[in-house]
Amino acid sequence: MIETPYLLFLGDAPDPLAAKVAQGIRDWRPENAVGQYRMPGCKADMKLPDMDLAEAHAAGAKTLVIGVANRGGVISEAWKAVLHTALEQGFDLASGLHNLLQDEADLVATATRHGRQLHDVRVPEVKYPIANGVKRSGKRLLAVGTDCSIGKMYTALCIDREMRNRGMDCSFRATGQTGILITGDGVPLDAVVADFMAGSIEWLTPDNDPDHWDLIEGQGSLFHVSYSGVTMALIHGGQPDALILCHEPTRSHMRGLPGYKLPTLEQLRDTALTLARVANPACQAVGIAINTQAMSDQEALDYCAETEARMGLPTVDPYRHGAGRLVDALGAI
Amino acid sequence: MIETPYLLFLGDAPDPLAAKVAQGIRDWRPENAVGQYRMPGCKADMKLPDMDLAEAHAAGAKTLVIGVANRGGVISEAWKAVLHTALEQGFDLASGLHNLLQDEADLVATATRHGRQLHDVRVPEVKYPIANGVKRSGKRLLAVGTDCSIGKMYTALCIDREMRNRGMDCSFRATGQTGILITGDGVPLDAVVADFMAGSIEWLTPDNDPDHWDLIEGQGSLFHVSYSGVTMALIHGGQPDALILCHEPTRSHMRGLPGYKLPTLEQLRDTALTLARVANPACQAVGIAINTQAMSDQEALDYCAETEARMGLPTVDPYRHGAGRLVDALGAI
Repeated sequence: MIETPYLLFLGDAPDPLAAKVAQGIRDWRPENAVGQYRMPGCKADMKLPDMDLAEAHAAGAKTLVIGVANRGGVISEAWKAVLHTALEQGFDLASGLHNLLQDEADLVATATRHGRQLHDVRVPEVKYPIANGVKRSGKRLLAVGTDCSIGKMYTALCIDREMRNRGMDCSFRATGQTGILITGDGVPLDAVVADFMAGSIEWLTPDNDPDHWDLIEGQGSLFHVSYSGVTMALIHGGQPDALILCHEPTRSHMRGLPGYKLPTLEQLRDTALTLARVANPACQAVGIAINTQAMSDQEALDYCAETEARMGLPTVDPYRHGAGRLVDALGAI
Repeated sequence: MIETPYLLFLGDAPDPLAAKVAQGIRDWRPENAVGQYRMPGCKADMKLPDMDLAEAHAAGAKTLVIGVANRGGVISEAWKAVLHTALEQGFDLASGLHNLLQDEADLVATATRHGRQLHDVRVPEVKYPIANGVKRSGKRLLAVGTDCSIGKMYTALCIDREMRNRGMDCSFRATGQTGILITGDGVPLDAVVADFMAGSIEWLTPDNDPDHWDLIEGQGSLFHVSYSGVTMALIHGGQPDALILCHEPTRSHMRGLPGYKLPTLEQLRDTALTLARVANPACQAVGIAINTQAMSDQEALDYCAETEARMGLPTVDPYRHGAGRLVDALGAI
């Protein structure tokens, strides 16, 4: 559990895209960010108050979150000057970088000296159980995709926002590093040891009130040969009541796998439901989320309408059109 | 890679069942075992020559394999006296115990001093790649089951033996600790980090001669919610040409999961083939292996005959009846 609220560290971001993690926090949990910290030359701007460490501390920030990808894969000396000072001033640090904070001996020494935490969200901090398959109370949704990196996290976050706006009881459950930094906790599933994958998702989505929805961030795809085992563990560990099928219509092949075609939405529905019903016989496919970012407004609407007619399920781009119709369908379960 | 041949350490085995690993080596790779080492009170006997360390060393043994489950989950002082002496006399040690050799500082010190290896086969020794899904040459078989612990390893080993007897070119590919100790190498898949599971199986079963068969030991089951992700990674990383369906007819529920019924062989076939064809569109289900250990001779024959008539695939208990008909079917691919 990462302490909130955050000061978002944008460093010397070479362009706005490098600050994707900070943007995710800004978009989805603005209440978690009291301000941004920018170094000379920073090309990213979250439109949050620029603060130095003392100002952010006074504003209540508990954790400095590295919201930017680093250059050359290393934590630079220029960054380190800020990170050391932050630890000395009472901040914890959180990062999703490949270059782990805990592998930097000088940062570990400073954190230890000042009693602060270093959170590397790529590394599990919990000893997860082996899944026991026992039915849990409360409701669970899982986003599954025809491919990786197709909008599953954004779909779950859009549904989370819509449910919150309606006053429904829900929790976005992060299963990847960006999601964990956005919300402050979750399971870095791709780094969990095989035997404990499904158990980690049971741990993440425990018994809850009957009307509470866990909105579980998907990972990988049953049809992506590199990562399908991770998806399988989400389907069985999450024991979802509802699946949202996610698709991006313009992909010519599976991400990183030339020669592998995407499955159809029908194939995804049939395969995912068959497997999901092992853990939860009542599981249903309730809606379809299309990632239309490569389409015009009219193309997006047409594609969703055609898909809805073919599949018989509410079909929207939740980021572009809102998740209202998906939440309507979930509310009927 | 564990150096062979072995001296099998049976310790003070309280009963024959405790020496399951040694029995597996004795049954499936007798050429890997020059002898056995028994301590006072040992109740197990592999019918191998009893040897002390010096005799085994003279007979060519390279590795002392702990072939017995330890009492109380710890490596006892009585065992350690033998293990230290073995390291001093030039043996490597290999173990599948939960209590890792590498966690015993005194054993590590002795091994380091004498330049010997400690192999804990529960711990991956290789940095595996992420799977790339590229089609590999050679043929691959994977055993899949309606449940865990249903005879998948024995099925693959029976097929391996039959193929060797026929002079066919094949390799048993171990994916669990017992299999690794039997053959001297493999992937401890249940201990691999999620992102690298499928890649570890690609690594284990590389390009090979067109007529070579990799006989891949299965793990878990697509229908076992605790471990299905591991099975999924085997199906996609192994890109099998052939599946053997494994079943045990007398189970009342999935292993360790009261309330979860076993799937039918038809459900297993359909689900496993659908997923396997993502990685290898030519994959076929070629035969069925029934674990009939809880049945009389006649019951076993009747059950196999009924299953064969229903499923249209050669059906045997390969351990009881031999794997000849399964190998016939594989030879036709």
